[in-house]
Amino acid sequence: MSIQFHVDATSGPARAGRLLTPHGEIQTPVFMPVGTLASVKGVSQDLLEELGVQVLLGNTYHLYLRPGVDQIRKLGGLHRFMAWPRPILTDSGGFQVFSLNDLRKVTEEGVTFRSHLDGSAHFLSPETATEAQIGLGADIIMAFDECTEYPADQVRVRTSMDLTLRWAERCKQYFEEHKSEVPWRTNRVGTAAPGCPGERELAGSAALHSAGRVRASFDCAQDRPASAQTQSLFGIVQGGMNLALRRESAQRTIEIGFPGYAIGGLSVGEPRTLTREIVEATVEHLPTAKPRYLMGVGTPEEIVEYANLGIDMMDCVLPTRAGRHGLLFTSQGKVSIKQARYAGDDSTLDPACRCQVCARYSRAYLRHLYASDEVLAQVLNTVHNLSFYLDTMRSVRHSIELGSRAHFLSGVQSQPKP
Amino acid sequence: MSIQFHVDATSGPARAGRLLTPHGEIQTPVFMPVGTLASVKGVSQDLLEELGVQVLLGNTYHLYLRPGVDQIRKLGGLHRFMAWPRPILTDSGGFQVFSLNDLRKVTEEGVTFRSHLDGSAHFLSPETATEAQIGLGADIIMAFDECTEYPADQVRVRTSMDLTLRWAERCKQYFEEHKSEVPWRTNRVGTAAPGCPGERELAGSAALHSAGRVRASFDCAQDRPASAQTQSLFGIVQGGMNLALRRESAQRTIEIGFPGYAIGGLSVGEPRTLTREIVEATVEHLPTAKPRYLMGVGTPEEIVEYANLGIDMMDCVLPTRAGRHGLLFTSQGKVSIKQARYAGDDSTLDPACRCQVCARYSRAYLRHLYASDEVLAQVLNTVHNLSFYLDTMRSVRHSIELGSRAHFLSGVQSQPKP
Repeated sequence: MSIQFHVDATSGPARAGRLLTPHGEIQTPVFMPVGTLASVKGVSQDLLEELGVQVLLGNTYHLYLRPGVDQIRKLGGLHRFMAWPRPILTDSGGFQVFSLNDLRKVTEEGVTFRSHLDGSAHFLSPETATEAQIGLGADIIMAFDECTEYPADQVRVRTSMDLTLRWAERCKQYFEEHKSEVPWRTNRVGTAAPGCPGERELAGSAALHSAGRVRASFDCAQDRPASAQTQSLFGIVQGGMNLALRRESAQRTIEIGFPGYAIGGLSVGEPRTLTREIVEATVEHLPTAKPRYLMGVGTPEEIVEYANLGIDMMDCVLPTRAGRHGLLFTSQGKVSIKQARYAGDDSTLDPACRCQVCARYSRAYLRHLYASDEVLAQVLNTVHNLSFYLDTMRSVRHSIELGSRAHFLSGVQSQPKP
Repeated sequence: MSIQFHVDATSGPARAGRLLTPHGEIQTPVFMPVGTLASVKGVSQDLLEELGVQVLLGNTYHLYLRPGVDQIRKLGGLHRFMAWPRPILTDSGGFQVFSLNDLRKVTEEGVTFRSHLDGSAHFLSPETATEAQIGLGADIIMAFDECTEYPADQVRVRTSMDLTLRWAERCKQYFEEHKSEVPWRTNRVGTAAPGCPGERELAGSAALHSAGRVRASFDCAQDRPASAQTQSLFGIVQGGMNLALRRESAQRTIEIGFPGYAIGGLSVGEPRTLTREIVEATVEHLPTAKPRYLMGVGTPEEIVEYANLGIDMMDCVLPTRAGRHGLLFTSQGKVSIKQARYAGDDSTLDPACRCQVCARYSRAYLRHLYASDEVLAQVLNTVHNLSFYLDTMRSVRHSIELGSRAHFLSGVQSQPKP
């Protein structure tokens, strides 16, 4: 088995689970911070660990362009490259490629596109996107899909959904034929292999003071034989904003068969009530024994709501991107730290928060850093927002374990299904 | 006493000492990282503490413009504003103002200049620069001097030196009349003063998990009565590159009388052999019982050399600024991490370094972050360079304690005086 998923507790449709991956366990529901270019912008991996980040998301499109999949493969895969021993999920690159409106051309075979960096021409297909993700070596990788634009008419949505389904089959076939090529699997041929840099570093690290900071082995988990370890390829449900097509997409994706299912094509400009409706209707058609991943959402309130609908995994750039722009999420609502009203405010950003930012600094200092364009503003704002998201999700999980429906920390009531 | 200085060991002219300030002890010789705008660019105060930073330097010119001295005073002073409980030194703003070539006008009274931010007109004088530094509340503050340009003829150097001496007297007079106005002194009128935010925060912090991360009291040291605590104003020796004028400047500055003496006007474009000659000749005229501060130097090799000449304190933007530009100091020499040769280099940046960067990441990853313009590049590069500087200085101090002349970690031999 590449992954195992256990549901420990349920509360209505909501589940508290554990997802076992080659690089460790993930407690679900889980929020996955986005580390586009093998880095969560401004935050060191030491700090991500302290924050309790369980799994990071990497963007295949960006890593494919820079530093390149071959480079990362040669360096042992993404875990080792970025010194992150915990689980990683990569997207397929599809979403980024489709957002390059004027720079791409879609055919049955795949997508031709131009790099946003230098205009160079590239081609991604179900096969090459899967090949790239095997080279990166994330624990969970995603099928290459077409993210249907919004709004789109029913013919367009069906055409796009059918393409995604044909591509899903091709992704699975390529993956099954090549999954043994993942870099951390080949890294661990024997426990004292000379070519295993993880082991070499460990041997010389006895003098280092903190075990958490040692350049440890970033290969697969130690307690299972390497031959048993592979990545997991998740399928993606499309179908636009059409409930019937969403059901059909879910059913046909399940027929192909994946160890986990994502809901894609949402958070693309539609109203949030519609997002919720589609999520709720789609979840019903997904198997209860497999993890469910809602891609690209959301606000703190929304991630609580989706967890309550039975979603197990979510990712979003919002906490990191908003932090860089001075928008901070707190238990008392949003704080736009750039505002002059905070210039003399000696109080703590969020007294209910236990992150290192709230423990140490005042709003006045955070405002000064932002107004002065200091790099530390980006660092501290991101740390706080991530902490808030992760605390929110831990609180949701705890509520599910207690058997009650989770309520958002700030007291915003989620809307349970009637 | 505002500070006390004890020399614990000497080795030739080099000294290992302890400088007791209102915010704690500094072991000398010491390197002071530069935190221009109340932040060492990209590095959190938690990390600075972990690195063993003993004292930070703040730039009065920059803080005067943003967020403004009144704002920082109202918020309890610089320690509390930036949540840094350890010692701070501020410069007088003189050096920055004099570097605004086309935007300033010098008279006997002071310097009129225009802000580099918005062109607004400002005036700094011995009195206003000292007033600003009292408002900021650093443990050690500097006299407002004229940093003589290089090259300069002997008449110009004398004229400038005489002006600096007249200004030094005015600084001292203003300081003596106003030193009781330092914000952290007035913060602590009684131990349960309602206006003491340090105490208030401490009372509410019991739930926080890490004592080092609590918003602790940033006021003066707890073990001495507030009435005994003031800042210390250091004098600055000028005199250009003229040994006789340096001697005269030292003697006349000592006659005015300060608790510590700085050597200014160096590292302004002159050859390094000349810098060394001036430092060595000037140190001879400074009292052995007072701390000696060489302003604005230098490379790792140079800070070792100056410590061996009897300098106790140094500051420089080099480790932080070079880090931001991808230049890393290691025990094996400089590494320009931007170079393509490191793209596939899985090795540790500096195997002899124990910083968290060298413990965790490869050169390939650091190169990727820099090449991709990731903020984390700036953070990690700065952390490593500061760690290298601080380790270098700790090693120098250890060598002095052992009674031997300090040698630079890399094996570069310093040149002891014959």
